[in-house]
Amino acid sequence: MSILVVGSVAFDTVKTPFGEGREVLGGSATHFAVSASFWANVRLVAVVGEDFTDEHRRPLVDRGIDVSGLATAAGRTFRWVGEYDYDLNNPRTLDTQLNVFASFRPEIPLAWRDTPLLFLANIDPDLQRDVLEQVPRASLVAADTMNYWIASKPESLKALLARVRILLINDGEIRQLTGEPNLVRAAAVVRAWGPRTIVIKRGEHGVLVFDAETVFALPAYPLEAVLDPTGAGDAFAGGFLGYLAARGFGEVLDVRRAAVVGSVMASYQVEAFSFDRLATLTWPEIRDRYQKFIHLTRFDPLP
Amino acid sequence: MSILVVGSVAFDTVKTPFGEGREVLGGSATHFAVSASFWANVRLVAVVGEDFTDEHRRPLVDRGIDVSGLATAAGRTFRWVGEYDYDLNNPRTLDTQLNVFASFRPEIPLAWRDTPLLFLANIDPDLQRDVLEQVPRASLVAADTMNYWIASKPESLKALLARVRILLINDGEIRQLTGEPNLVRAAAVVRAWGPRTIVIKRGEHGVLVFDAETVFALPAYPLEAVLDPTGAGDAFAGGFLGYLAARGFGEVLDVRRAAVVGSVMASYQVEAFSFDRLATLTWPEIRDRYQKFIHLTRFDPLP
Repeated sequence: MSILVVGSVAFDTVKTPFGEGREVLGGSATHFAVSASFWANVRLVAVVGEDFTDEHRRPLVDRGIDVSGLATAAGRTFRWVGEYDYDLNNPRTLDTQLNVFASFRPEIPLAWRDTPLLFLANIDPDLQRDVLEQVPRASLVAADTMNYWIASKPESLKALLARVRILLINDGEIRQLTGEPNLVRAAAVVRAWGPRTIVIKRGEHGVLVFDAETVFALPAYPLEAVLDPTGAGDAFAGGFLGYLAARGFGEVLDVRRAAVVGSVMASYQVEAFSFDRLATLTWPEIRDRYQKFIHLTRFDPLP
Repeated sequence: MSILVVGSVAFDTVKTPFGEGREVLGGSATHFAVSASFWANVRLVAVVGEDFTDEHRRPLVDRGIDVSGLATAAGRTFRWVGEYDYDLNNPRTLDTQLNVFASFRPEIPLAWRDTPLLFLANIDPDLQRDVLEQVPRASLVAADTMNYWIASKPESLKALLARVRILLINDGEIRQLTGEPNLVRAAAVVRAWGPRTIVIKRGEHGVLVFDAETVFALPAYPLEAVLDPTGAGDAFAGGFLGYLAARGFGEVLDVRRAAVVGSVMASYQVEAFSFDRLATLTWPEIRDRYQKFIHLTRFDPLP
């Protein structure tokens, strides 16, 4: 099954206490697409500048990602500069140059308008809604967002959520969005707005999934060395939705296995800068870490 | 099997956004003992002042806790005043009056010196070591500590850890103790000092257990209403060690089920002030929440 992702492609300059990546390939759509490409056919819609060469396209093409929706506009590609402290949680943004991304108006290629699974990565909710209009027959729509849009366009975001099945969001963001510090109640508030499935990403603390009557909690994989957390959330989303696309889905989603697969992909994502680790990732490694998640979390019933 | 706990008994005045408890029964030994009393015979050693009446003793005695090691000293009982914000994480301490606790020198009753399981709740590590000398035949020794002792008596604490099998500690504290932000590496550092089992308590994010070659991660139970987190860590320890005492133990500890039981007890502890919730807790409720933890965390292997 194919997945269509609309989001950003960027050059990131990232500093962590353990190293630095200079103008490495990043962006929400990039990280999502690379991760999802292990599980499904991925169609990528984004915009880059004239400085984005075939050499930059190659690692995406090598992963089988269809980049024919990657538009080139006059100007430079989106740039982000950020820095992480030892705790590797929220980065400090040192510089953001939107460049060609500032005037991005996603145009979905005609042949892609019947893609069954649509991921609206973190962009302006007005644009996310515009994309939805262009892909009216998507049977599963998932969206991400960020604090900037929650603060600046809450009404547009709520209008979007009314038409989204799955919201992926981090814990700080859902608290901001709902004004509710308790995550169980915050998820209930958002579910009343539309999305039936709420996936709350908690970084090093794992993930919580609220879906119909089910709550699923999964810790993050305890890694001895995290090099760069950039893209972990998008790699998670890529694994989560990629798994659903690979397995097929009906009314009921296999959100538990999907969340484990997402966590597997995210755990590898953070082991290197950019998507360097995913670029060399193998199927045995994916299966091995899934098994390790089983061992990490299993316990027996009371005697 | 019996458990001996040495720690504090206090009157707590606690304010949270959801209510207030005024001079309610608290303290590390109290919360531990009440929780552990569901699973094992508990012997409590602590000190109180002349203002601690039979009426204060009654709820402990009602839970079957042996309070014959609860000494009364001239003066007032330890008092703590604290306040929690909406995030319900670390409290702000508004006032601490050590009172009789300032000159506490634990004296273990002779008949209790062969207790097989010893829990050294959070007190001065010099005193914790002194207690160890008095209970030389304990076959399982567990200890807790806090930021204050890590900062003021790190060498005494390390000397204690060399003789402890299980360390229970929160995430911020083990980072402070080791200077290592990564929890996997921090646990390895502490294990090299002595304790074979490291239980890292992460509050609303659950618990991580490092034991021999095993790592076990359990999320916290997602509660819709947390009234007062005070005593959650001690209630966890009470369930964790109470379960080990109830089941018996050899070289290998059943740390996984113990951690789930600890999390069950802690999840009830925070539903009310003081130990009001545990005072009315029933066995069917304990078994029910254990089952809910199974449902919360279960997922299937990859197809």
